[in-house]
Amino acid sequence: MALNGTAGHTCPSPMKATSNGVFQGDNPLDFALPLAILQICLVVVVTRGLAFLLRPLRQPRVIAEIIGGILLGPSALGRNKSYLAAIFPPKSITVLDTLANIGLMFFLFLAGLELDTKSLSRTGKKALSIAIAGISLPFTLGIGSSFILRATIAKGVNATSFLVFMGVALSITAFPVLARILAELKLLTTDVGRMAMSAAAVNDVAAWILLALAIALSGNNLSPVVPLWVFLSGSGFVICAYLIITKIFNWMGWRCHEGEPVDEMYICLALASVLAAGFVTDTIGIHALFGAFVVGILFPKEGPYAGAIVEKVEDFVSGLFLPLYFVSSGLKTNVATIQGIQSWGLLALVIFTVCFGKIVGTVVVSLICKIPISEALALGFLMNSKGLVKLIVLNIGKDRKVLNDQTFAIMVLMAFFTTSITTPVVMGVYKPAKRVNKKNYKHRTIERKSLNTQLRILVCFHSSRNIPSIINLMESSRGTEKHGGLFVYAMHLMELSERSSAILMVHKARKNGLPF
Amino acid sequence: MALNGTAGHTCPSPMKATSNGVFQGDNPLDFALPLAILQICLVVVVTRGLAFLLRPLRQPRVIAEIIGGILLGPSALGRNKSYLAAIFPPKSITVLDTLANIGLMFFLFLAGLELDTKSLSRTGKKALSIAIAGISLPFTLGIGSSFILRATIAKGVNATSFLVFMGVALSITAFPVLARILAELKLLTTDVGRMAMSAAAVNDVAAWILLALAIALSGNNLSPVVPLWVFLSGSGFVICAYLIITKIFNWMGWRCHEGEPVDEMYICLALASVLAAGFVTDTIGIHALFGAFVVGILFPKEGPYAGAIVEKVEDFVSGLFLPLYFVSSGLKTNVATIQGIQSWGLLALVIFTVCFGKIVGTVVVSLICKIPISEALALGFLMNSKGLVKLIVLNIGKDRKVLNDQTFAIMVLMAFFTTSITTPVVMGVYKPAKRVNKKNYKHRTIERKSLNTQLRILVCFHSSRNIPSIINLMESSRGTEKHGGLFVYAMHLMELSERSSAILMVHKARKNGLPF
Repeated sequence: MALNGTAGHTCPSPMKATSNGVFQGDNPLDFALPLAILQICLVVVVTRGLAFLLRPLRQPRVIAEIIGGILLGPSALGRNKSYLAAIFPPKSITVLDTLANIGLMFFLFLAGLELDTKSLSRTGKKALSIAIAGISLPFTLGIGSSFILRATIAKGVNATSFLVFMGVALSITAFPVLARILAELKLLTTDVGRMAMSAAAVNDVAAWILLALAIALSGNNLSPVVPLWVFLSGSGFVICAYLIITKIFNWMGWRCHEGEPVDEMYICLALASVLAAGFVTDTIGIHALFGAFVVGILFPKEGPYAGAIVEKVEDFVSGLFLPLYFVSSGLKTNVATIQGIQSWGLLALVIFTVCFGKIVGTVVVSLICKIPISEALALGFLMNSKGLVKLIVLNIGKDRKVLNDQTFAIMVLMAFFTTSITTPVVMGVYKPAKRVNKKNYKHRTIERKSLNTQLRILVCFHSSRNIPSIINLMESSRGTEKHGGLFVYAMHLMELSERSSAILMVHKARKNGLPF
Repeated sequence: MALNGTAGHTCPSPMKATSNGVFQGDNPLDFALPLAILQICLVVVVTRGLAFLLRPLRQPRVIAEIIGGILLGPSALGRNKSYLAAIFPPKSITVLDTLANIGLMFFLFLAGLELDTKSLSRTGKKALSIAIAGISLPFTLGIGSSFILRATIAKGVNATSFLVFMGVALSITAFPVLARILAELKLLTTDVGRMAMSAAAVNDVAAWILLALAIALSGNNLSPVVPLWVFLSGSGFVICAYLIITKIFNWMGWRCHEGEPVDEMYICLALASVLAAGFVTDTIGIHALFGAFVVGILFPKEGPYAGAIVEKVEDFVSGLFLPLYFVSSGLKTNVATIQGIQSWGLLALVIFTVCFGKIVGTVVVSLICKIPISEALALGFLMNSKGLVKLIVLNIGKDRKVLNDQTFAIMVLMAFFTTSITTPVVMGVYKPAKRVNKKNYKHRTIERKSLNTQLRILVCFHSSRNIPSIINLMESSRGTEKHGGLFVYAMHLMELSERSSAILMVHKARKNGLPF
């Protein structure tokens, strides 16, 4: 057993999962399970702690997770080599990455679920044009700036794929992050919010297609046939998924009735199919995430089925496994590589280009669409938020050797910057909607003038479990006279968490046209 | 990358998580993520298929999973070496085992949650004595038979630990399996069921302590101090956990209110602490499962907190990761090693000893406790069910080199046999409780003689979401006269799945003294 520990880089023998304990001379960190546990716990604690510290700044959690990842990586703590060798030894990376990718796949499945496809089809001309502007301008600028980068720090990388990657990286708007920021600012159902969501949705889908393209182009061997095949089979997969998956899951969703626990078989099948789809896309050569995302998009969003799945997945996966992804990304990030005026200059340049592209592009188009300036600005900055999806693109680029360490570090910082400014700026530019009263069980009754007038009651209930008692209350309070009806306005207020279920809820609510 | 594929056993370089796709000449099975996905999907499909086939035989799912594991292992499919090398290559075992162990930890956390500690304290003299008889007799017999085994096929293994392991392996009653069988037979709240549950609970705890002891004794180095230290620090851990964890989680549980979604932070913390506890116990040298199990036992079982946790964990973990454990166990099992009259004779002997010990022990004591013969027999066979916990003990024994291939295979088959006979035999000896009518929304009303008599209604509602409508119904159906009240018997019928949440429900129901 001790061999595991000493073998080190040269030839690590496959790690055993569980140790025999320190008392028998085993170092738990030489074994896969305890090491993975330690990594998970470490990451969770750090990111949660940071999220807690950043709460006053009203930053989305992804910021805390990016910082956490960088802190644990070679940029900060990782400068201490013995720490790196102990906690994140090379031989542990396999397990770490696998767990992280599983977490990521399910996160993107959820992201796909959150993506309200209906709203995509409903998207008005405005949102569409905003989205297009929000992609095309940064994309072109990104390609432009990538020329400068290639001339300086990113010499001798695969030209085309580098250009496309930069373009994608700069033109992305992180839909999940955006949704959470809007929820946080209570803008989700304002015009701006709606528009931003739709635009971001379009943007998201476009970005993913571009990413698939970029990955297809990022071959080590440069035969032009490969990307073609990859892209063809990719689209083939999407079509098959659309034809098969949708049918099956719609049928299952139709089989699950409101209020009954969803059949465990169905849930297992859904989760397994997410994994399977990931396997297919990974085999094709577009990252496993792509498959999971597609399944998420095609998944029926109404009904208890989707709700149950989200319930099952969100906390476990995004709570324990997903944070690992930020670490495995942080381990690749080395801020120290950014030194000298040139690098910092490039960082400034990239940040400027991306902000300029996104914001100006969006603002101009929105102004053309006769959107008031304040809203237009808010939209611009909202569309400017990057976040996890961006990080994913960068990591894939890094894995594919398209981005070198320095470029990677610059881009990560850029993503970090653009995301972190979003909330404060938007709050500054755009008056947040007046806060709704969040006291629960708040009953208001209106004095009724005569017996013949209608009795109106506004009931704010907190959860479906209160309904029976409230109905009782009303029933008992209601008079026995036939004349003079009873009219109840039910109102359900709840705080939106950063969970996907919250976002799903919003979709539902919006579909039913409720005020939120 | 191709290196990963070719390196093989001699010196596997750490696998990359994700591939570049077949079109760039990567075989996805050389990469950790796709391989893990393939393994998961394969296992899930096989076990589910078997479970479906075995449903008519009314076997608990664990049977299907054991068979599935053995089928995928070297006993059946594994005879084809190229298949083993492709799907379960040695270098993939690290990831496989890690995932499997994570799944197992959370499964045992759930098992601990299911274990109704109150019922332990409430356990009457009868159940206690039955439990003790159900442990001691098989334990002694196990030790007896282990002498024979050591004389024949298990030569030169660590004597003491082998004896203890055999003792534990034979004296175990699998609490979760038992609970599911009882639920399946609708015996959960009959006297037999209650008694079996309590006895099994005692048995379970005792078995775990014995297992910890066995592991402590199974040192490669035989210095007598090590087991002592292991056991001392183990009990130290339990005490600390009892003092700290209980407090924290009770506080959190108290903070979560019925009907509100549980704070995501709390859930994450609970899951993380399960992992952390596993880390501690693994470091101590008693398997990581032990820590997870302890956390599960100490976890507050009332309130929405536990419910939410179970919801989050059960399907994802026990659906996707747990089955991997049966494979990694199946990969160790090689039925082919059982050949020749001697081996089969030993198998028969072991089966006989365990059944004899358990059943006779239980039956005799229950008869002494004046339990009618039929119930006594039923109890005996119920206590005889092994299942996953047994498998865990065996695997640990195998990992610790205490059990050799042949002994291991024999014991697995024994566990398989004893578990599979339980349901049919118990159904044979003990008349199952008369089936409750499972039609939903079944309203019965009683003709009331005069206006002054009470109007009684029996409402069978299917889920809490039906309550409002039902209340409306009643309210509207109720007369306006003051005299003659309304009396409602609400009745909630639901089918028990094999999920932990179902078992938890039973505990709740039993606490509230509801008929089930």
